[in-house]
Amino acid sequence: MKRPYNFSAGPATMPEAVLQQAAAEMLDWHGSGMGVMEMSHRGKEFISIYEQAEADLRELLAVPANFKILFMQGGALAENAIIPLNLARGGAADFVVTGSWGQKSYKEAGKFCNARLAASTQASGFTTLPEPSSWQLDADSAYVHICSNETIHGVEFHQLPDLKALGCDAPLVVDFSSHVASRPVDWSRVGLAFGGAQKNLGPAGLTLVVVREDLLGHAVPHCPSAFDYKLVAEAGSMYNTPPTYAIYMAGLVFQWLKAQGGVAAIEAANIAKAQLFYDYLDGSALYENRVAKDCRSRMNIPFFLRDESRNDAFLAGAKAAGLLQLKGHKSVGGMRASLYNAMPIEGVQALVAYMQEFERKA
Amino acid sequence: MKRPYNFSAGPATMPEAVLQQAAAEMLDWHGSGMGVMEMSHRGKEFISIYEQAEADLRELLAVPANFKILFMQGGALAENAIIPLNLARGGAADFVVTGSWGQKSYKEAGKFCNARLAASTQASGFTTLPEPSSWQLDADSAYVHICSNETIHGVEFHQLPDLKALGCDAPLVVDFSSHVASRPVDWSRVGLAFGGAQKNLGPAGLTLVVVREDLLGHAVPHCPSAFDYKLVAEAGSMYNTPPTYAIYMAGLVFQWLKAQGGVAAIEAANIAKAQLFYDYLDGSALYENRVAKDCRSRMNIPFFLRDESRNDAFLAGAKAAGLLQLKGHKSVGGMRASLYNAMPIEGVQALVAYMQEFERKA
Repeated sequence: MKRPYNFSAGPATMPEAVLQQAAAEMLDWHGSGMGVMEMSHRGKEFISIYEQAEADLRELLAVPANFKILFMQGGALAENAIIPLNLARGGAADFVVTGSWGQKSYKEAGKFCNARLAASTQASGFTTLPEPSSWQLDADSAYVHICSNETIHGVEFHQLPDLKALGCDAPLVVDFSSHVASRPVDWSRVGLAFGGAQKNLGPAGLTLVVVREDLLGHAVPHCPSAFDYKLVAEAGSMYNTPPTYAIYMAGLVFQWLKAQGGVAAIEAANIAKAQLFYDYLDGSALYENRVAKDCRSRMNIPFFLRDESRNDAFLAGAKAAGLLQLKGHKSVGGMRASLYNAMPIEGVQALVAYMQEFERKA
Repeated sequence: MKRPYNFSAGPATMPEAVLQQAAAEMLDWHGSGMGVMEMSHRGKEFISIYEQAEADLRELLAVPANFKILFMQGGALAENAIIPLNLARGGAADFVVTGSWGQKSYKEAGKFCNARLAASTQASGFTTLPEPSSWQLDADSAYVHICSNETIHGVEFHQLPDLKALGCDAPLVVDFSSHVASRPVDWSRVGLAFGGAQKNLGPAGLTLVVVREDLLGHAVPHCPSAFDYKLVAEAGSMYNTPPTYAIYMAGLVFQWLKAQGGVAAIEAANIAKAQLFYDYLDGSALYENRVAKDCRSRMNIPFFLRDESRNDAFLAGAKAAGLLQLKGHKSVGGMRASLYNAMPIEGVQALVAYMQEFERKA
């Protein structure tokens, strides 16, 4: 039987081949007599899994040699505290708020530093992006924070801001949780990028942090040691026991991504998937997406039925058609289709076909 | 082919039946069309997995109603900071140091509170336990910390100290990482117990915290929100996205434990396994365990070859005999056999048989 298509915003659909391999290796990894979950994180078997995952990710994202890749725990919400504890030195940081996630980062950082609002699109209901030239950036900021793809509101920076061109020397901190590995990253514009794994990389419980080396070593004294980037980097992400199975799963996803042709190829596929879906929404009389066209997310597409009384029927019919987890986030309402790397174009075609049929029967 | 026996101290051997079930359900959990990794943590499927896991654990450990069960991330090393951030209120706490883990807790807590050494067995090389009547407890302490089973040094509190009987009203904080669910817990003596899951409960990347309700709500302002016990409890451990797959695996382990007869039955099995192994060590001319008999751990048994030049041959022969991960921790040397719940007595018998044969051939 064909698996249903799963449009969850995260934790999210995984490549079927990855799940099959994980199932096959569950009791015995590569003849070691152990499942991956059962290995000491300091043994040669797991170290080889870890090193391969890190090398593959570095290759896929073209991470320069002067950036450290850290595998951590706690998700983006924990990083909202960990970043100012490591980078702000008790001073100030600037926040560009373009949706729920940026707002949470801004609010949490205020516990640890002077968090300043550099820009906000709240007035548009988070359906637009602010022009970088309009951002209120301060010369003494320790960093500038953006969320480059807002999972809930469905807005995406299609290119990262060039802070230097804006006359700002502070490092850019990027929450790329929900579109990491969906497109290349211009590391020349980035100081630190972070994200939970549970959208494009693997299971929940793993956090990716990619940080420029000169930003290590500035944690305030009351930063928990397990979240001090310098200590984590020096220990090769094994200051505390890492989430070994989640790292293994992410490693399988990285190998799958390489087999798809890498990030440039997956970006082309993501563009095609998103265009197919937005084109259908924009041509429809029943459905609508409310995000400005120049900043629509390729990954997370919120949409609404103009007749909201039909929402329940829409969701029930979708589930019956093998189209799962389409309900929108409660703070926005409506529907949301997340088209992560692991969603094949056939899934988007099936969704559009269902939506056409549902519209036709209206 | 029979699986090897895996004596890793953690991440550690899992029940074979649990791994088989996880492999079988990897692509489709209970006909949902999704693997557990792919489910929204807020959907009804995962919520049912979560609630069952919590209820089973509460039943297995007989956790009273006035204690909250929290599923967190970061392991015991992160908790070494999170606990004083939540409990110490910037004041003082007392530490009983009986091995590496207690020492780490004591050192890390010093970043967040006035951490005082109430007792230490460093002088004995951490091979003994200090009499509770000798502990230097202060009337103003926010809590008293012990590690009730030292994974590296192999010492175990066979019963928890009764602080009230010592005239101390502070709550007892217990790191039970490496023997949780191996025996019952006397919750009347506990304020908070915590541990990483990767020994007796499931995969690395999940932290269990069981905390008395009156200890919630006292976090200092610079406690990261994701690690504020009150916020985590109010959100049902979903303040941030929880490590969903690790919780699922732990839930399968809980069901396996119930099928074994629960914690009392597994304790009896653990006593028999440990006794078999210690009796053999004590009667041997080649091997020795150096821990005082009244505080030997049932879970983690360090031992030494009196002729250490034979260590490599011992490990190579063990591996060839299907007995894995017996090398001792680098800080102690020698060997270590971890006999967690999932290690059947047949594994201990096979280990003893190999050791007898190795000794005979000396």
